[in-house]
Amino acid sequence: MKIVIDAMGGDNAPRSNVEGALSAAREWQDIEIVLVGDQQQIEALLTDRPSNLSVIHASEVIEAEDEPVKAVRRKKDSSMVVAGRMVRDGEASAMISAGNTGALMTTGLLVVGRMKGIERPALAPIIPTLDGKGVLALDLGANMDSKPEHLQQFALMGSLYREKVHGIAKPRVGLLNVGTEPGKGNELTKQAYPLLEQLPIHFVGNVEARDVMDGVCDVLVCDGFAGNILLKAIEGTAGALFSLLKEQFSQSLKTKLAAALMMPQLRSLKSTLDYKEHGGAPLLGLSGLVVKGHGSSDAGAIKNAVRQARIAVSSKLVESISNEISGK
Amino acid sequence: MKIVIDAMGGDNAPRSNVEGALSAAREWQDIEIVLVGDQQQIEALLTDRPSNLSVIHASEVIEAEDEPVKAVRRKKDSSMVVAGRMVRDGEASAMISAGNTGALMTTGLLVVGRMKGIERPALAPIIPTLDGKGVLALDLGANMDSKPEHLQQFALMGSLYREKVHGIAKPRVGLLNVGTEPGKGNELTKQAYPLLEQLPIHFVGNVEARDVMDGVCDVLVCDGFAGNILLKAIEGTAGALFSLLKEQFSQSLKTKLAAALMMPQLRSLKSTLDYKEHGGAPLLGLSGLVVKGHGSSDAGAIKNAVRQARIAVSSKLVESISNEISGK
Repeated sequence: MKIVIDAMGGDNAPRSNVEGALSAAREWQDIEIVLVGDQQQIEALLTDRPSNLSVIHASEVIEAEDEPVKAVRRKKDSSMVVAGRMVRDGEASAMISAGNTGALMTTGLLVVGRMKGIERPALAPIIPTLDGKGVLALDLGANMDSKPEHLQQFALMGSLYREKVHGIAKPRVGLLNVGTEPGKGNELTKQAYPLLEQLPIHFVGNVEARDVMDGVCDVLVCDGFAGNILLKAIEGTAGALFSLLKEQFSQSLKTKLAAALMMPQLRSLKSTLDYKEHGGAPLLGLSGLVVKGHGSSDAGAIKNAVRQARIAVSSKLVESISNEISGK
Repeated sequence: MKIVIDAMGGDNAPRSNVEGALSAAREWQDIEIVLVGDQQQIEALLTDRPSNLSVIHASEVIEAEDEPVKAVRRKKDSSMVVAGRMVRDGEASAMISAGNTGALMTTGLLVVGRMKGIERPALAPIIPTLDGKGVLALDLGANMDSKPEHLQQFALMGSLYREKVHGIAKPRVGLLNVGTEPGKGNELTKQAYPLLEQLPIHFVGNVEARDVMDGVCDVLVCDGFAGNILLKAIEGTAGALFSLLKEQFSQSLKTKLAAALMMPQLRSLKSTLDYKEHGGAPLLGLSGLVVKGHGSSDAGAIKNAVRQARIAVSSKLVESISNEISGK
């Protein structure tokens, strides 16, 4: 199994990407890792050269501020697009990139290509929950306006991912909505509800935004707009609370003392809520596996993304989704 | 000016409603307060009888679990519907209810009636922000599927409310969206953006969910579905964080000590985030003023709602909205 890594994407590229790739190559001897990007820069960072790690040169880089569609169309020799072509051509089983999210989704659509029968691929990151297990939410950003049938496909793909990659036997699939009763919601969720009921999945009904962090489901289905509002509201509230806490901790000697006593607990609290710790987000519904690493991925996050890709490929995730979709 | 209070609506009714009404009647001699509901129960709670407070009997009560439209249609002598009729008939300038939210919105639509030119009335509660000033968000629940023109009207109404009732000179109006750039969003927000630009308001552009709590705008425009996701995600995250904190505080003697030292700060933190403390939410776009108190309103919250209604009526809020809408 060959896994290709965009060495140039992300805030800490290429260093973190190369370090993560090295560490993954050492840990899993059953995979081959290919780093794509500026050969000179990559080789300068390669402190070791395991036999299952190789480098392919790409002369261009898609930057964070590049306009996605334009960048993918024009920068044909960028590390991201070259990696995408390798997946399309069957030269690699999966690709990982921590680069420009829009460009990666465009690479997925235009270079790797949609899976037959899938109308809209979906980006599926993990939202943190109190029990530490997280919930796979999709779509989170690939599609702004979804149809009920898209949500139905998201539910199926998300359920298969949780089962295959995370080993959850009967993933509980919930529909993000404004109330728990079946008749609730906007036109989209009202029409999607019966479609989700028809699927061969463990559909647990509507889930309210306030219950998501309590871990009431393993997969949360939503359109990209609502999903973005949810994820960013959670991020914003957690960030706001931590800054309020910090401010209040520094108010007096007494509270500074309390802060010092609490510091280890607060750090672990923060990491529970840090969705970056949950690794990469798969882009599901493509003809090959694409994993999006967080922009600020460090070496550990890149290695984590390789771990996920390795499990997904060996458990035949893409083939399973394809079978379910075509069998319908 | 006459303000009518549904004495029977809310978790703490009628006690809190009667106490809040009494306290408001004593504080503001320039208003007349009418309590509508079970006369016997109300009078038993009236420890005092200011000359500007009266009671009107209503034999029925709309319960929290009643189906809204059915309840409003059938319970014609319920305290909520009687109060709504008084506003419709010009016998009162405003009504306040902490009862069944759906039924109150139905009372607004079917009993009080829409303002001419307004397509969809909107519920506009305050979402807490770090600076303590809050942001008026609308619509939050009255309409699940909005059109761009509805969002345009929400923006205008919200801006006027902040100006008239909260005394903010040029309220900053933001559009809830998935990115700050003008072209971002789903079809609804992309089409609403230029419509908001045309209004005689201080439109500050798109606002992301993660920035809402930082107080980047005074009015946040959204459809009821996205607004619900936002508000409940904030509530859920804050609740989850507090329960995590509590758990971690109780882990050892050391952390228990820290908790004791921090308690006053944590309480004030919690109250900053408690949107109940921000008083009632107006239902804007009706031919009269309707204020929704939180279901768990205590006497102070009811009094707060009277304060808001009094300012709104004396500043001619409803007339101003009507003039702006018809002048367009």
